[in-house]
Amino acid sequence: MNKIRIILAGPRGKMGQEALKMIEETSHFELVAAVDSKNDGLQVKDLSGAPLSMEAPVYDDMENCLASIEADVVVDLTRPDIGKKHLELALNKGLRTVIGTTGFSNEDLERLKVLAEEKQTGAIIAPNFAIGAILMMKFSQMAAKYLPDIEIIEKHHDQKLDAPSGTALKTAQLITEVREEKKQGHPDEKEDLKGARGAELEGIRIHSVRLPGLVAHQEVIFGGEGQVLTIRHDSMNRTSFMPGVRLAVESVMKIEGLVYGLENIME
Amino acid sequence: MNKIRIILAGPRGKMGQEALKMIEETSHFELVAAVDSKNDGLQVKDLSGAPLSMEAPVYDDMENCLASIEADVVVDLTRPDIGKKHLELALNKGLRTVIGTTGFSNEDLERLKVLAEEKQTGAIIAPNFAIGAILMMKFSQMAAKYLPDIEIIEKHHDQKLDAPSGTALKTAQLITEVREEKKQGHPDEKEDLKGARGAELEGIRIHSVRLPGLVAHQEVIFGGEGQVLTIRHDSMNRTSFMPGVRLAVESVMKIEGLVYGLENIME
Amino acid sequence: MNKIRIILAGPRGKMGQEALKMIEETSHFELVAAVDSKNDGLQVKDLSGAPLSMEAPVYDDMENCLASIEADVVVDLTRPDIGKKHLELALNKGLRTVIGTTGFSNEDLERLKVLAEEKQTGAIIAPNFAIGAILMMKFSQMAAKYLPDIEIIEKHHDQKLDAPSGTALKTAQLITEVREEKKQGHPDEKEDLKGARGAELEGIRIHSVRLPGLVAHQEVIFGGEGQVLTIRHDSMNRTSFMPGVRLAVESVMKIEGLVYGLENIME
Amino acid sequence: MNKIRIILAGPRGKMGQEALKMIEETSHFELVAAVDSKNDGLQVKDLSGAPLSMEAPVYDDMENCLASIEADVVVDLTRPDIGKKHLELALNKGLRTVIGTTGFSNEDLERLKVLAEEKQTGAIIAPNFAIGAILMMKFSQMAAKYLPDIEIIEKHHDQKLDAPSGTALKTAQLITEVREEKKQGHPDEKEDLKGARGAELEGIRIHSVRLPGLVAHQEVIFGGEGQVLTIRHDSMNRTSFMPGVRLAVESVMKIEGLVYGLENIME
Repeated sequence: MNKIRIILAGPRGKMGQEALKMIEETSHFELVAAVDSKNDGLQVKDLSGAPLSMEAPVYDDMENCLASIEADVVVDLTRPDIGKKHLELALNKGLRTVIGTTGFSNEDLERLKVLAEEKQTGAIIAPNFAIGAILMMKFSQMAAKYLPDIEIIEKHHDQKLDAPSGTALKTAQLITEVREEKKQGHPDEKEDLKGARGAELEGIRIHSVRLPGLVAHQEVIFGGEGQVLTIRHDSMNRTSFMPGVRLAVESVMKIEGLVYGLENIME
Repeated sequence: MNKIRIILAGPRGKMGQEALKMIEETSHFELVAAVDSKNDGLQVKDLSGAPLSMEAPVYDDMENCLASIEADVVVDLTRPDIGKKHLELALNKGLRTVIGTTGFSNEDLERLKVLAEEKQTGAIIAPNFAIGAILMMKFSQMAAKYLPDIEIIEKHHDQKLDAPSGTALKTAQLITEVREEKKQGHPDEKEDLKGARGAELEGIRIHSVRLPGLVAHQEVIFGGEGQVLTIRHDSMNRTSFMPGVRLAVESVMKIEGLVYGLENIME
Repeated sequence: MNKIRIILAGPRGKMGQEALKMIEETSHFELVAAVDSKNDGLQVKDLSGAPLSMEAPVYDDMENCLASIEADVVVDLTRPDIGKKHLELALNKGLRTVIGTTGFSNEDLERLKVLAEEKQTGAIIAPNFAIGAILMMKFSQMAAKYLPDIEIIEKHHDQKLDAPSGTALKTAQLITEVREEKKQGHPDEKEDLKGARGAELEGIRIHSVRLPGLVAHQEVIFGGEGQVLTIRHDSMNRTSFMPGVRLAVESVMKIEGLVYGLENIME
Repeated sequence: MNKIRIILAGPRGKMGQEALKMIEETSHFELVAAVDSKNDGLQVKDLSGAPLSMEAPVYDDMENCLASIEADVVVDLTRPDIGKKHLELALNKGLRTVIGTTGFSNEDLERLKVLAEEKQTGAIIAPNFAIGAILMMKFSQMAAKYLPDIEIIEKHHDQKLDAPSGTALKTAQLITEVREEKKQGHPDEKEDLKGARGAELEGIRIHSVRLPGLVAHQEVIFGGEGQVLTIRHDSMNRTSFMPGVRLAVESVMKIEGLVYGLENIME
């Protein structure tokens, strides 16, 4: 099998540095160039945090890069505004693209979809690369059809400001798409201390734990007669996104058109 | 909606008693008769363990029962040899059937499939009615494609004789269908105490805990870079089978032909 | 070793039936009589739920029983008002007593303490016989000195009316005895959905989960820099009280005076 | 309260770097000097990994350091051979000492004990500073007296070579000190796959899980009639040792003589 030739945009960011390591460690991936806001003309190995063995040129402009370098996939891990521009340039060149930024409007998505199809190429936009979290949400939606009494406990370090977490809210919303609103618990239950029964989103209870020592954890608990099913995800650090980036790169080689959300390329 | 009219075979067994309660509590189900090895001519409410309000005749013979009673579904919770006979009688009458026994050969299944299709009716054979356990196995098979490093911990009361449990073995086998065999752990890892790393099935490690106070629990743990996904099922008692029986009765009304395994009617 | 001779009051209650089985299975215990509100003159084996082999007379009056039977310990598993009377009768006779009821005033306790000392005998009053739960509370109090950031998650079946559970409140109160009140979480944290951060008792957060399939579970979570300590208790059914009753009977043989709370005889 | 003046030996090691940060963040601690194998004459802030604000001289020799600097406590986080020498020098000077290395013989300990008492000063030798892990072991030993059926599950990343972990073995050994050897599980249980029931140490079963994404986790599970008690410790990174170092520094100010093991200063 030929190696998949990758141009990485954003090689010095936290995700970018992890992505360089991941490409280095994946035998069928090859980095052919990086696009950085500065450092034009250097080699990737000269960038802070990059593997010392990585020989590939750095460009400070995607257009120049695409004009000079033969590649299969552009992986963009920059900011929303830049990412959108990069995606468009890559599609116009007929290159496949994996992009990890958010901030696309419905009109953007519609237009990019048409563009990808015209150019007979593929693109994946992934606001979340954490495969484990995506599986947790997917399974939760499936389980809710059969075990509709559900509570979510999410646990994070005590520096987190918002509660519940975005993932907990997203999980609950996905569940409400397949489950009718229902009142959970005993109709006559009462809180002797306010807040004990947690937050409520269409009947689903959500509890947020904040303690030092925790990182990012969530469990979705499904109760049924005589049984309990629990789906739990523990995320330790940013490396947890790399299997998702790898999967997206492999998948984008096989599709035509635009896919939004990694869950849509996972069966 | 018309109520689904049910004939229950095996009303005095442990599963049967729970099924009577479940039918009683399900507003769109109606018990129209029971088939018991004895007690012919009594009412269901007279049987030991039956809800006192259940007015439906007891027959000691399925053939007589089917000749006298109009019904939609036969639910059989008896023994394999009897179940097989009941299933055949019901299909020949064109009745839909849900059957919870095991022990069908491939030839049996082939013949019954043809019979169900000829009679334009449906049948579901379910060796396991525990919806939560079936979901755990289904999700495990799905997750293994993306997070292929897997260990299983199953925990049971200390009266259990075999280790690992049947469910743990089944889970591991389902995973091996989608995952290539792989060596897990560090290539140079060693056990300072024999057995510490558990049993191995094509690379998947299985650990069996046996303690008083436990009932029946299993967790399937998927490790990936920087993250862990865990799917856990806790089974407390036999009532955990009733949502599965209910689902099977509802589903058998809509199918034509034979379905083996509840997992095949769950999306 | 001589067997410990036991008179059991309340042999037909849920706890009483379990206690009969426990005495039967404990080789150094011997049932010498039972005190029941009815069934005077029968044998224990005739009572509903009793082991069929238990030959010991039933009395409907504690005073008569104590007058006729030689015993070492009276175990009382009746109601508060009756229990108090039984305890007093037993102490006056110089018998050791284990009593599982609540409802003693401080004056009661003071008076019974003096009485036990006068009679040079021992008594244990145990509002909670669940050894595992008592250990959980004891350990929580110890851990709170070193890891003072604490949240409690308690999980019960969805028929429970009150939240938080009594055990959760008791645990939190025991912790506040050794920990100064502190504000947990980030000073600027905010709830986007009300109740997400749970109930609060002097800074300790308490979360109550209510789902079908759950029985009675609690975890106390201690967060510290880079680490988390969790103490968890799962209670499945009333048999969980029997190791506590057994321990109390063994311990009451060795003490003089009155002990309130099983935690005070556990090191 | 006067600040506790600290000399830190080993400031560039992994533990040492964390200790510098901890001292910086503890308002009643003050770093007065560091002892490093090199960098004599520099300031601590010049060392790699040190907080930039830390103004305190670096010595490459403990003897010189002690001759020039007034301090209350020497904290040694170097290697066993060096640590032993440092401890002896500090005690001879009458300084209190906290030392995190292992490798002391019984004769060493005896001699150092006498020395500390002669000099009317205190020393704490702590092979393990992880407070949460120490509490887990302490609680396990206490619980084993009341709930003697025990299994241990420890989980680590898949780069770990040995199984079971040292902490699991230590926990089991501590339990065997208070529990008689017993055969756990059903007398007739059998393994259909070898290793399923884990390793065995005097009847206690130990299971070792190794997966990417895990860090360092252990749960000790106590089963009793109708109940399960679980004590779990999750360690995320080296910062988890700092509360233990802090506790040791605070405690060593109040003792006379030698204490071996942090568990002996925790109530």
